[in-house]
Amino acid sequence: MSYGEQSLKMHKEKKGKLEVISKIPVNTREDLSIAYTPGVAEPCIEISKDKDKVYDYTIKSNTVAIVSNGTAVLGLGNIGAEASIPVMEGKALLFKEFAGVDAFPICIDSEDPEEVIKTVKLICPVFGGINLEDIKAPECFYIEETLKRELNIPVFHDDQHGTAVVVLSGLYNALKLTKKNIKDVKIIINGAGSAGIAICKLLLKAGAENIIMCDKKGAIYDGGNCLFESHEEIAKVTNKNKESGSLKEVLVGADVFIGVSGPNMINAEDVKTMNSDAIIFAMANPTPEIMPDEAKLGGARVIATGRSDFANQINNVLVFPGIFKGALTVRATEINDEMKLAAARALANLIPEEELNEENIIPNALDKRVSGKVAEEVMRIAREMGVASL
Amino acid sequence: MSYGEQSLKMHKEKKGKLEVISKIPVNTREDLSIAYTPGVAEPCIEISKDKDKVYDYTIKSNTVAIVSNGTAVLGLGNIGAEASIPVMEGKALLFKEFAGVDAFPICIDSEDPEEVIKTVKLICPVFGGINLEDIKAPECFYIEETLKRELNIPVFHDDQHGTAVVVLSGLYNALKLTKKNIKDVKIIINGAGSAGIAICKLLLKAGAENIIMCDKKGAIYDGGNCLFESHEEIAKVTNKNKESGSLKEVLVGADVFIGVSGPNMINAEDVKTMNSDAIIFAMANPTPEIMPDEAKLGGARVIATGRSDFANQINNVLVFPGIFKGALTVRATEINDEMKLAAARALANLIPEEELNEENIIPNALDKRVSGKVAEEVMRIAREMGVASL
Repeated sequence: MSYGEQSLKMHKEKKGKLEVISKIPVNTREDLSIAYTPGVAEPCIEISKDKDKVYDYTIKSNTVAIVSNGTAVLGLGNIGAEASIPVMEGKALLFKEFAGVDAFPICIDSEDPEEVIKTVKLICPVFGGINLEDIKAPECFYIEETLKRELNIPVFHDDQHGTAVVVLSGLYNALKLTKKNIKDVKIIINGAGSAGIAICKLLLKAGAENIIMCDKKGAIYDGGNCLFESHEEIAKVTNKNKESGSLKEVLVGADVFIGVSGPNMINAEDVKTMNSDAIIFAMANPTPEIMPDEAKLGGARVIATGRSDFANQINNVLVFPGIFKGALTVRATEINDEMKLAAARALANLIPEEELNEENIIPNALDKRVSGKVAEEVMRIAREMGVASL
Repeated sequence: MSYGEQSLKMHKEKKGKLEVISKIPVNTREDLSIAYTPGVAEPCIEISKDKDKVYDYTIKSNTVAIVSNGTAVLGLGNIGAEASIPVMEGKALLFKEFAGVDAFPICIDSEDPEEVIKTVKLICPVFGGINLEDIKAPECFYIEETLKRELNIPVFHDDQHGTAVVVLSGLYNALKLTKKNIKDVKIIINGAGSAGIAICKLLLKAGAENIIMCDKKGAIYDGGNCLFESHEEIAKVTNKNKESGSLKEVLVGADVFIGVSGPNMINAEDVKTMNSDAIIFAMANPTPEIMPDEAKLGGARVIATGRSDFANQINNVLVFPGIFKGALTVRATEINDEMKLAAARALANLIPEEELNEENIIPNALDKRVSGKVAEEVMRIAREMGVASL
């Protein structure tokens, strides 16, 4: 049976993957009087006197809403709120399994960004953080920016920033291996959707100075090939020489190829035109921009994909559980760029120098040490930057 | 330590009472590939092709939203969404403990009924039922009516209907004991808020013909003493002789007193003016409308309160878990009056005739048989009425 068939069978048998249970026993009248009436009036009164106590007496301090409207689910596109639920449930169980964070799917039946924003704002009393998921561009940018500005809890669009952090982390180790500096390398990012743009922005923050983003029509540059506002914005800070041309044309002489696009975008011949010790992150799923064998044929030195059946899997599960765990633990009001950079460094540093090699630049997605280490660094930086309350 | 102090301590130590866990293990790459990507695409695709399959492949079929805006929490009044969370978490754990139903608090930061309605409609993809809770009157009526009309999943305001069902159930047994008929008895309901009105309506449905509702200013009658639209509506179907006067005045000759009001509303002398074998349900919490000892002094035969430290506790936990369990199991599109009547009968019938006595008209709130029996009857009637899909 394929994973898809097994998945269908399991989902049907179990009727979904999540369960909401009590942390305390409810067997006696006493238990009931403490967990519920009359005792429960006491924490209610305390919170009504000081709203901040909601963190002390409720699940808020450890609970995240996984918010989607189902407009960009996996590679399936706009399939609607109902059809997005299996993914959001999956995300919730990863939060719990990898970081002990409780998460619940909030699947919003609306494509109107204003309605999504309003809904999240209205239901946020219970939640200590908001993980946006599988919302299509460009709406996702506006939704995230507005919620970040208007809420005082962390808001994080994982498709953008989770991906960006794990890519940067892998890139840190790949550059270490190839003895290149992030300042000097020429980086091509193919796919200027929400993930590509977030990767680009984070790499710039991390010191990259020579990035060219490509979309379907080729290189994006200031004044050319910009389809969206987000493209125009990114064009101003990338591709300083205003290189135009196709992906294959601008790839010549590049040190790094990062693909968040679609299958079979480049081949071995293209890789041969890149600089020596080329680094290829081909993350389209299930078929990458170039298969690892083909990339190797072209002379690539380090290859990562989104798939678990090849070495170096770029998997967001390495990032979001730990980032939220850290942010929730210190009650951070936001997850800012410095916290993301910290997460990327922590993740990279989990591979000790003596174990670092072409097939091992990123920890295993199932490595349970990861979220704790990521959380630690995120907490440290949040405190240093004064965005932590604890 | 008082229950309040113990409750405060427990809530702080545990940081709330709920936890969201995975029903399936996530230890291997295989597990991850089935629960999450790539396998999870399959159930998503199935649901996108047929929305109804959301019941097969997600938590929807067994999951209830506990919706409050914190405007009428316990006896504490309008304390806001944050301060209502401990109650809603408590409710959720009762759902799980007593009926195996998963429930999650949706605490909405708005007093505007339109915003509450809109929010519930937008987040309902994940939920198989909506339990409204602690929303103040008269907004709660409008919110419930609108959602019932516009959603195709059960919507149930527990403060109204849960209370009504358990009262009717107790009344069935009290009347059996006193050999009186619901058609003939004179019933006084004191407190014309949402619970009082729901009790009144359900008793009418159950065949009561002589009910007088009282509010702060005394008896409500057609043309008099109506503060709200809901009072005018109820005045048309109760108090046929248009009796006016204070609670104490109309209580004379009554067979049943039902209090959902405040402490110490009547005394032994008042009970003495009632008919023989008087039935008193004094449900104000923590201090009832009349204490059981005092009621007995006045000659009352059957006495119930909302408290667990006296006999015959009227507790909604006897009702809402089973009603929702039943409605969810057969995928009912609503919880209608006939289903409520069925629940009341099932609950009453859990006390076998040989065990029925003045101190035992209602099952114990911790009796775990209850929800199953209630669910069974609710399912049967839902199917009979054609509101069940399974």
